[in-house]
Amino acid sequence: MESLFDGLPAEEASARNGYARNTIDRRSEKRGADSLATALADPSARLYLFRGDKALLRGTNPLFSHREATALGELADMILLGWSESGPRLAAALADATPIDEALIRPIDLRSLAVEGAVGPEHLGALAQARALTNWHIRHRFCSVCGQPTTMTMGGYRRDCPACKAEHFPRTDPVVIMLAIHGKGAEERCLLGRQARFIPGMYSCLAGFLEPGETIEDAVRRETFEEAGIRVGRVRYHASQPWPFPASLMIGCHAEALNRDIIRDEAELEDCRWFTRAEARQMLAGTHPEGIKSPPPIAIANSILSAWAGMGGGAAG
Amino acid sequence: MESLFDGLPAEEASARNGYARNTIDRRSEKRGADSLATALADPSARLYLFRGDKALLRGTNPLFSHREATALGELADMILLGWSESGPRLAAALADATPIDEALIRPIDLRSLAVEGAVGPEHLGALAQARALTNWHIRHRFCSVCGQPTTMTMGGYRRDCPACKAEHFPRTDPVVIMLAIHGKGAEERCLLGRQARFIPGMYSCLAGFLEPGETIEDAVRRETFEEAGIRVGRVRYHASQPWPFPASLMIGCHAEALNRDIIRDEAELEDCRWFTRAEARQMLAGTHPEGIKSPPPIAIANSILSAWAGMGGGAAG
Repeated sequence: MESLFDGLPAEEASARNGYARNTIDRRSEKRGADSLATALADPSARLYLFRGDKALLRGTNPLFSHREATALGELADMILLGWSESGPRLAAALADATPIDEALIRPIDLRSLAVEGAVGPEHLGALAQARALTNWHIRHRFCSVCGQPTTMTMGGYRRDCPACKAEHFPRTDPVVIMLAIHGKGAEERCLLGRQARFIPGMYSCLAGFLEPGETIEDAVRRETFEEAGIRVGRVRYHASQPWPFPASLMIGCHAEALNRDIIRDEAELEDCRWFTRAEARQMLAGTHPEGIKSPPPIAIANSILSAWAGMGGGAAG
Repeated sequence: MESLFDGLPAEEASARNGYARNTIDRRSEKRGADSLATALADPSARLYLFRGDKALLRGTNPLFSHREATALGELADMILLGWSESGPRLAAALADATPIDEALIRPIDLRSLAVEGAVGPEHLGALAQARALTNWHIRHRFCSVCGQPTTMTMGGYRRDCPACKAEHFPRTDPVVIMLAIHGKGAEERCLLGRQARFIPGMYSCLAGFLEPGETIEDAVRRETFEEAGIRVGRVRYHASQPWPFPASLMIGCHAEALNRDIIRDEAELEDCRWFTRAEARQMLAGTHPEGIKSPPPIAIANSILSAWAGMGGGAAG
């Protein structure tokens, strides 16, 4: 191997996930108290709008001028996302009760929007960024240190407490999501689980929030053991994904399973099974004889499963 | 390659970082409202204690029985970390003003504690977990949604708002930390920067908080460009580390630099330079002729730099 990068696939796995490929230039090091007003004054500024959990679309267009946005209702929590090639990009939320003429404007949740391909792929990452931040502001009107009202600054990337002077920053919650793999050759199997809330027939990777004081690898081992009773040895990072429900960072891994006797966490999982590579391919292709489905391509679990299923005769992709 | 795991080093890079190797069994799926009281009633229960930012030690022992702990002062924010082989492990904070007989008990910050090796390595991960959580509770007495006081539950892994019913979970902040590498063979160089707050002579990897709506790889590219004007192509995950100042998850990567002309962010970095592999080895060994130092082994930057410097004639470690 000539360099540390020679082993990497030509196309970055993370870039293929839903909500990735965010092309907004954040210029985070230049954010200041007046960045937002300056950007908004630019005639090329455009806003992504939300009402509650839903983004607003006109046809396939998620962007509104400031004038168009204010005509719809009062804008709370305006945020400067950054700059696209066409100018500043911002986000704002309308109050939940704001009436909308749904003949002209369609409110849509970000999951449906991604699965349907309702907007151009260049908007998905920006909408994920916008949704994580607007949700954070809605849930952080008050200072968690002293209980007093806070105010937004730094283009929406900080909230300050005038009373106790605490500064609060947006949070991103790391989640580990992993495919445990056991055995070799004809005996090789992958571990997938099913939560009761999933659509019928869908099985996915196990996943859980990383906790304070653990490495990614330790979190993968802990969650796999807690949910399925499977011990994990080596862990290999695969890809990451912003997941705006509301603000997770999905960290996708393959995990070397050390045993095959599943002890399912019944509160968490409705079922948990080992699958062959042939079955994984059928699930991904929608041809599994039992109608078992993989998660859709927007989900990182699809990418984690595909990377294993696509290995052919055992050669790493 | 026979399996996805064959390319991984025998010893996991993450496990070599400071505060890693946390052997506490968290049993997170079994946490309930009464877990803490049950664990504390176990005569083998032991507590890690903090006063402000500092852990309390008796000699090299960071553990106190419940009786010993309450004799020192009122315990706030008691948390159930989980179980060691010797019994339940908890953490608690004494009020900042609590007097301590420093002839018997030594308060020490977690950085000094790790650098000095002041406690056995089996305690470092548990102390990081404890510190992240005690700090989170201190900063979350009030509900960020409605401003009312919150109460701790689930062994310290949740705070509930009796007024608006919001549930709040501990946060862990993902940080990307990366070594950009440019060129091949004799021209290969790595990029290190120096912040004014560093100890004299120390250079380290660039780093920054991952923001909502970006992948790990995108965050590596954004931070490297913002801090040093260097464009990054491919990104390779190296290792992760819990970093309890107060609750970060360090995500360490190697980054393929596409240009060599540095444009330093002067607000962030006092200096930023390219180093040869020979220099990197000297820095790690403490023999650099200009007295330039690498970060200490407890920091993931040391591991990221070592992995590159240790490649010898270009072979990946």
